[in-house]
Amino acid sequence: MINTENSLILHGPVAYSRGPDELITFEDAYAVCVNGVSEGVFESLPEEYRGLPVEDVRGKLIIPGLVDLHIHAPQYQFRGIGMDMELLPWLASYAFPEEARYADIDYAAAAYAMFVKELRHSATTRACVFATAHKAATLKLMELLEESGLVTFVGKVCMDRNVPDYYVESTEGSLSATGEWLSEAEKAGFLNTHPIITPRFTPACTRELMRGLAELSREYAVPVQSHLSENLSEIELVKELEPDTSCYADSYVRAGLIRKDCPSVMVHCVWSGEEELSILKENGVFIAHSPESNINLCSGAAPVKKYLEAGLNTGLATDVAGGSSTSMFSAIRNAVFASKLRFRLYDGSVKPLTFSEAFYLATKGGGAFFGKAGSLEKGYMFDALILDESRIPTMRTDMNIAERLERFVYLGHDNDIAGKLVCGKKLFWK
Amino acid sequence: MINTENSLILHGPVAYSRGPDELITFEDAYAVCVNGVSEGVFESLPEEYRGLPVEDVRGKLIIPGLVDLHIHAPQYQFRGIGMDMELLPWLASYAFPEEARYADIDYAAAAYAMFVKELRHSATTRACVFATAHKAATLKLMELLEESGLVTFVGKVCMDRNVPDYYVESTEGSLSATGEWLSEAEKAGFLNTHPIITPRFTPACTRELMRGLAELSREYAVPVQSHLSENLSEIELVKELEPDTSCYADSYVRAGLIRKDCPSVMVHCVWSGEEELSILKENGVFIAHSPESNINLCSGAAPVKKYLEAGLNTGLATDVAGGSSTSMFSAIRNAVFASKLRFRLYDGSVKPLTFSEAFYLATKGGGAFFGKAGSLEKGYMFDALILDESRIPTMRTDMNIAERLERFVYLGHDNDIAGKLVCGKKLFWK
Repeated sequence: MINTENSLILHGPVAYSRGPDELITFEDAYAVCVNGVSEGVFESLPEEYRGLPVEDVRGKLIIPGLVDLHIHAPQYQFRGIGMDMELLPWLASYAFPEEARYADIDYAAAAYAMFVKELRHSATTRACVFATAHKAATLKLMELLEESGLVTFVGKVCMDRNVPDYYVESTEGSLSATGEWLSEAEKAGFLNTHPIITPRFTPACTRELMRGLAELSREYAVPVQSHLSENLSEIELVKELEPDTSCYADSYVRAGLIRKDCPSVMVHCVWSGEEELSILKENGVFIAHSPESNINLCSGAAPVKKYLEAGLNTGLATDVAGGSSTSMFSAIRNAVFASKLRFRLYDGSVKPLTFSEAFYLATKGGGAFFGKAGSLEKGYMFDALILDESRIPTMRTDMNIAERLERFVYLGHDNDIAGKLVCGKKLFWK
Repeated sequence: MINTENSLILHGPVAYSRGPDELITFEDAYAVCVNGVSEGVFESLPEEYRGLPVEDVRGKLIIPGLVDLHIHAPQYQFRGIGMDMELLPWLASYAFPEEARYADIDYAAAAYAMFVKELRHSATTRACVFATAHKAATLKLMELLEESGLVTFVGKVCMDRNVPDYYVESTEGSLSATGEWLSEAEKAGFLNTHPIITPRFTPACTRELMRGLAELSREYAVPVQSHLSENLSEIELVKELEPDTSCYADSYVRAGLIRKDCPSVMVHCVWSGEEELSILKENGVFIAHSPESNINLCSGAAPVKKYLEAGLNTGLATDVAGGSSTSMFSAIRNAVFASKLRFRLYDGSVKPLTFSEAFYLATKGGGAFFGKAGSLEKGYMFDALILDESRIPTMRTDMNIAERLERFVYLGHDNDIAGKLVCGKKLFWK
């Protein structure tokens, strides 16, 4: 049975990643979606799909939806300011005071509506989202995201130490609120909006809290997200706070938050050593590389090419508001930027990311956290963007699809997206 | 006598730089322009200016026009592609073949019209521009720029070695074409479009050519622009080609192209040593810092904070198409990005650029090459931009002007410029 609501054909130039070094391109092809899932991309349309509606987007570019593995929804309100600070003072000056405001559900509803509106019109089709510590505001965010048509994991943030009094939770309070939140989220019956256990990061979470959260992640069978090895001062602090751990990741392992039977995203991994990388690899952890944030907060630049070569699960993230921009195109550029300066100025043994690799990170790399997402290959959930290059004129008529895509990523803007689909359903179409 | 064509008052929030660490802001002020020149910015309007027309732009932001100290007009056509290459192969694969096309004046006219249209609508009010080796095409570009209302220095590029046969000039041919071009440009009587002597860079110019160009710069009293110490392989090549020089800059000194009585812009200075910096300082040379280009081509990151502290003349540049974007907002961001990664990964003794410093580079820093330009202080040529923040919503109502400006630079787009003036004349007004 073909459902006409989420079955269609996009006709035009297509680009998607099969692997980090395999950017697959078609000058003129048919991307076929049946019941929300890709049937593949064909140079001539197979007979069996002739009855499906066709959207002719020749002259534009068809690519998979982009996947943002880490974004702080409440921090959207102060994106792009306070860029002269590093992580710990920046949290105290900007992040904590803003997040605390979400105790007020009316503020939260208005602020999150603004955030979701932008995300809906952005290049992002799927995202892993940090909310705040507040249960009601987090449920509100989930409602709004569910209405948007985006596919997301959303986490109520948990923290019981080293956070200002006006925002810190008690261990017990954090655990009980998280349990209630998981139960209410389950009852809400969201289709595309999933809860994810979200300890802020080890400096802000006692072992007891983290153990309790690990239990909840088992009980409700939900994944985990947190921050890891972002900033050198932060890493020093973890060493002091958790003297029995062999590395920062080990603090999550000991609490049961990184484990083989639980999908997880660890954000940053700028300074992860070999032991930490082994832990991530063994447990199938996803690394959310956040290049703009790592630059803005003077954290550094993760050796992402090495992670790809080592076969670690790696995706890309905006990390608003450590990163200023919700645009995943911007994240792709910044991933290449950071890798180039790291190569030239710090470690010539880790080569820069190629454009193809950075595009892979933003699509299939991070998409894998959602299952078969981030590609237009057969069997993948049909998330797609239609890119309009008309605002980037050139005399060139000989560009191939890879060059057109690279140019769009460098010079295009989320406003230049002419259409966006998630699982074959149009979120918008200009 | 007050000329009504270029006299007006802008009423709204204002920000401009007095110095690298002095961002001057007004919540609600009057920026007064009489006959194209700033009379200053006032919190209440002095009696004497009451007769001037007032543009009410409260709710928007008024800043000085931005100055792009280096951009290659012909390379605009391939901006944003070929980002996986370093300088020398990139020149051979992209820059030289494209520039060679400008031998065809019809192609040049169409391509330059496209470039000038974008520049006119960009944040740039003044620029130092490289054209190609072709005299006719360069004059065409100057005509188009003159019509645009922008203020520019434009150079016919000169080069007589290490450039493909299809594009290289003979020494004599380059000099005679440059002489003719200078003479014709003089006759054209442009008001805002000035010629500038433009040897491509030492690897592409014999000493004989450079000496001849130095003579022409004296004869026609025109300034000089070229590239300097961008890439490590390029610097090695200069050492081989010019064994009698003590550093790369010395190759220009020996030819008479860097000298005290001649204003000049040297682009990049990523790897300039102490001796080279002394030469630049002694001769008042302007450094055109091109952060995006230096990142894209894996050149490195210049220690710009050090240059500012040493009192070197320093401005900012897009360097299209080494840089992908014509946006000077993007250049400001990238200047901060590059300085932060350089600080964290390479040399902790040179602190990152603050936002204020990067904004200064893009305004008054580079503006000084044009005389009193790049500020709204009294006596400065009245170049201004009106920034519309409406596409960057936030719940925040407590941001100060510096925060609003920073946010715009991080998240705004050249399309969000609501008005642009050069010497008090409107280039556009939305």
